[in-house]
Amino acid sequence: MRARRRRPPYASLVTAQNLPDDRPRHWILTLSCPDGPGIVHAVAGVLAEHGGNITESQQFGDPYSGRFFMRVQVEAAASREELTTALGGVAERFDMTWDLDVAGRPIPTLLLVSKAAHCLVDLLYRERSQHLPIDVVGVVGNHRDLEDIAEFYRKPFHHVPVTRDTKAESEAAIRELITGTGAELVVLARYMQILSDEMCRDHAGRIINIHHSFLPSFKGAGPYRQAHDRGVKIIGATSHYVTGDLDEGPIIEQDVERVDHAATIDELVRIGEDTERRTLARAVRWHAEHRVLLDGHRTVVFR
Amino acid sequence: MRARRRRPPYASLVTAQNLPDDRPRHWILTLSCPDGPGIVHAVAGVLAEHGGNITESQQFGDPYSGRFFMRVQVEAAASREELTTALGGVAERFDMTWDLDVAGRPIPTLLLVSKAAHCLVDLLYRERSQHLPIDVVGVVGNHRDLEDIAEFYRKPFHHVPVTRDTKAESEAAIRELITGTGAELVVLARYMQILSDEMCRDHAGRIINIHHSFLPSFKGAGPYRQAHDRGVKIIGATSHYVTGDLDEGPIIEQDVERVDHAATIDELVRIGEDTERRTLARAVRWHAEHRVLLDGHRTVVFR
Amino acid sequence: MRARRRRPPYASLVTAQNLPDDRPRHWILTLSCPDGPGIVHAVAGVLAEHGGNITESQQFGDPYSGRFFMRVQVEAAASREELTTALGGVAERFDMTWDLDVAGRPIPTLLLVSKAAHCLVDLLYRERSQHLPIDVVGVVGNHRDLEDIAEFYRKPFHHVPVTRDTKAESEAAIRELITGTGAELVVLARYMQILSDEMCRDHAGRIINIHHSFLPSFKGAGPYRQAHDRGVKIIGATSHYVTGDLDEGPIIEQDVERVDHAATIDELVRIGEDTERRTLARAVRWHAEHRVLLDGHRTVVFR
Amino acid sequence: MRARRRRPPYASLVTAQNLPDDRPRHWILTLSCPDGPGIVHAVAGVLAEHGGNITESQQFGDPYSGRFFMRVQVEAAASREELTTALGGVAERFDMTWDLDVAGRPIPTLLLVSKAAHCLVDLLYRERSQHLPIDVVGVVGNHRDLEDIAEFYRKPFHHVPVTRDTKAESEAAIRELITGTGAELVVLARYMQILSDEMCRDHAGRIINIHHSFLPSFKGAGPYRQAHDRGVKIIGATSHYVTGDLDEGPIIEQDVERVDHAATIDELVRIGEDTERRTLARAVRWHAEHRVLLDGHRTVVFR
Repeated sequence: MRARRRRPPYASLVTAQNLPDDRPRHWILTLSCPDGPGIVHAVAGVLAEHGGNITESQQFGDPYSGRFFMRVQVEAAASREELTTALGGVAERFDMTWDLDVAGRPIPTLLLVSKAAHCLVDLLYRERSQHLPIDVVGVVGNHRDLEDIAEFYRKPFHHVPVTRDTKAESEAAIRELITGTGAELVVLARYMQILSDEMCRDHAGRIINIHHSFLPSFKGAGPYRQAHDRGVKIIGATSHYVTGDLDEGPIIEQDVERVDHAATIDELVRIGEDTERRTLARAVRWHAEHRVLLDGHRTVVFR
Repeated sequence: MRARRRRPPYASLVTAQNLPDDRPRHWILTLSCPDGPGIVHAVAGVLAEHGGNITESQQFGDPYSGRFFMRVQVEAAASREELTTALGGVAERFDMTWDLDVAGRPIPTLLLVSKAAHCLVDLLYRERSQHLPIDVVGVVGNHRDLEDIAEFYRKPFHHVPVTRDTKAESEAAIRELITGTGAELVVLARYMQILSDEMCRDHAGRIINIHHSFLPSFKGAGPYRQAHDRGVKIIGATSHYVTGDLDEGPIIEQDVERVDHAATIDELVRIGEDTERRTLARAVRWHAEHRVLLDGHRTVVFR
Repeated sequence: MRARRRRPPYASLVTAQNLPDDRPRHWILTLSCPDGPGIVHAVAGVLAEHGGNITESQQFGDPYSGRFFMRVQVEAAASREELTTALGGVAERFDMTWDLDVAGRPIPTLLLVSKAAHCLVDLLYRERSQHLPIDVVGVVGNHRDLEDIAEFYRKPFHHVPVTRDTKAESEAAIRELITGTGAELVVLARYMQILSDEMCRDHAGRIINIHHSFLPSFKGAGPYRQAHDRGVKIIGATSHYVTGDLDEGPIIEQDVERVDHAATIDELVRIGEDTERRTLARAVRWHAEHRVLLDGHRTVVFR
Repeated sequence: MRARRRRPPYASLVTAQNLPDDRPRHWILTLSCPDGPGIVHAVAGVLAEHGGNITESQQFGDPYSGRFFMRVQVEAAASREELTTALGGVAERFDMTWDLDVAGRPIPTLLLVSKAAHCLVDLLYRERSQHLPIDVVGVVGNHRDLEDIAEFYRKPFHHVPVTRDTKAESEAAIRELITGTGAELVVLARYMQILSDEMCRDHAGRIINIHHSFLPSFKGAGPYRQAHDRGVKIIGATSHYVTGDLDEGPIIEQDVERVDHAATIDELVRIGEDTERRTLARAVRWHAEHRVLLDGHRTVVFR
């Protein structure tokens, strides 16, 4: 059986190719495969043969799924071709799903928004401050409310309205934008529309959403109203990969904030916005740093 | 309409009666009533007339339920009779549910346990260290596993086994123990049995449970297994008043702990035990300090 | 002895005066005075006489300083003059420091910045989102780096460079801006200059700073470098009122974030920026909502 | 230069030797050495040659100290002799400080206490619940207050009083107890005596203390009084290895709790006890699981 590459576009990565061949580079290798002896040794062997120096490495064997996960950051002067060829053999032998990327490469990212600004402002600010290894290639809004923010950060803003009747066309427009911009990651930054099963499937593991509750509590609409009604003492937010199963995708990160009886629903919303943007920013950063690996409907996060 | 007293046994409180009459005492007054102008003034007036000096006070008007809540800690040399009579008038005028207690009086408490020791050990240790204003008057176990711990802390241990056929008899035995020991509070310290609707109703607002999940997530059995399966990144515990509606009672306190993909179900259980005992201890302390007031199916907690 | 008003400009507050006289308004009353019996009763009495309905109220008697603190939110149709006159009598009787403001009035605020953008971006975004009851009347920078951000939020940007020789002139310019804009609050949003003792004294309790460490750990310069060197497992930020005693002013709020051995100094800086902006935003909000009262070199925060 | 073994007694470990030779066992290998290429490959090679299956592994290269750290959990049927011999070669080649232990082996531990019970109660409870891989071989108290707790958990209690004049003799007695009981770890569970420089040096990296403040804030005596006086909004605790430099040893773990203005010094003490016992228990567990490696005066903690 052939080993699968998770994100094929990486193979022809221009950035990596253009680096001078005699300069050591940092690579990130991520992989998963059925657990068994000899994996680390085999991988480390390939890296050592190419003069690689491992600067960060994490492994995890999941006793429930029987799968093995690994993330290696390595300094190696070898070319992408050399590494890819050498790793390809090991990958085939252990039936690996794997990916090799240049460390720090900004991931081309498309942001989908609606009217709420907090996540958009936060992500764009963090990109500009170089706190997030992403390259925001565009902002899509089903409303025009946040156009000025996109403009301030010099990002193309695409107004793609969604009505009950135009859902399919809107999604087609978004798909075209993904292709046209070369986006490898889509972030639903409080985009209040539901994507089709087909779209979720085609971009599995590449669309991140922020849900404004501590899932699985308070699924669906109005989570802060639900939280207030139940009288919880802590509210939260959940960032997850989008799947066809609404609010059930693999969780990447969650965070919480303490509240008390005096907080109105409006105040929960305000408090929650802080938690949401923090949670989403972490999920996006870990994804962009290749720290998140899928383990069935769960995630392995090598923080 | 007559004002209601929340906990009638307090009126004949021996501890309070025996204090010398000329020594200032600390009292705690808690009340709730329909919101409206003049309540604080009227209450403060009664207290001022009796030489009371307010040392701590909190109020809250719930815009959703339209009810007003107040907790006052006051230093006053007046006798219980004088205060009760004077407050009775105000209470009737504003249709108050109210309660007056001596600050720091240890609340007679019955602990119900099963096999898990962590909450029992914690509560008994905190009582002994005078970190909890409770007086544990007995420990009831449906198994004998924790008898030695009760003995070490010199607490009567009552073995009340529960089988499918003896459920009613067991509950009757527990009711008798509550009456016999004068317990004003019952704590289900990981007591894995479900109480009857009738028992919940008769002791409404006086039975505290610890549920080993961040409610409303993962209700029912095996919450840590559920949490592991869903791949959550944070687990929690919830302490609530017991009602006939399982896992739906008014929440007093919740707390959480961060976990990661590598945590097995067993490890979640171990991590969770810390969260459970901490959460339960806080709920019991706040209840015993009269900081928890019922607002429908929610709680007001004057921390 | 006459009672002192904390912030005299409030008395002639235009916003409040212009409200129609027959519409109930929300007021915030804050006060502190030597502790003793009858204070709450007297204050509640004045409010009740003017048809006031208390919607939120907190009191605290500090056993160490012997002072009493109170914050009352009250709905009352009375005019400012009526309330001020009536409260003035009580204030004099109990030797109170007090203040009366219209609830929700945006506090005119001047932001002082240097090169780091995170706190400025955050405060301006929160103001625009109406999450902070402040009215930013201007941004002062000793560098021009953040001018574009101020412009985006349509705020006047004042470039006031500071060199060793022009320190006094720069401070004079800032003082003029405070007066000219009517600023009642000055926020040092990572403004890396030290203010003179005189300036600190003249604006005592009205200048808020954010220090990028968990004070009193790591005072002075380079706190993240210090934190890394000491190998701490948690880093923090501290928001405090500025006094002549550097990094020793009354603490309003602190927050922390967990870090591990792998975090470089640069990563601590990045993690810390999140903590800083969150901590500063809370301090500014609580101050602007009149929740922070001075108790010697400590603060009482009625959250 | 020869590779150093951190804890020589492990070599003759009876537990490991007695396991049947044909049964796979879990081992933990920890090592540190000057950073460079090929380390992981060499180590993984040795493990693979002996049929080892890596179940958990973490590496870290410290860019500041230039050292490399690694912890591997491995399932291998090989005998201790075989593994030790094979690893010895690699260790010598890379100038490693290393240690090999059987996973889950309870570390013989001596607890030193004074009058405060909270940490002792917690550690003994966790050992009994099998939440801590330690084997408490004795409790030493300079007072007799906690003797009954030791007895309840069936631990030998040694009363070793300390006065100004008997300091040296007391320490000699403790040293004898360490040798006599075979203790590999000493925990100062709120033992309020200062150990001599010589003792700290002789047991470097094997004595864990809990300090009741968020170090480096509030060193020395009365940290809660200091914290109250400074008006901090968060208090903490710090668990660290003991060195001759008081309160300056390598930090293993810290944790914090939020407090407010109303907390008295006594309440800070009570709140702090929870933080202390939680922090200490984590530090002891991580040490006992060989997750803590020394990196100069800092620690690497592979959680």
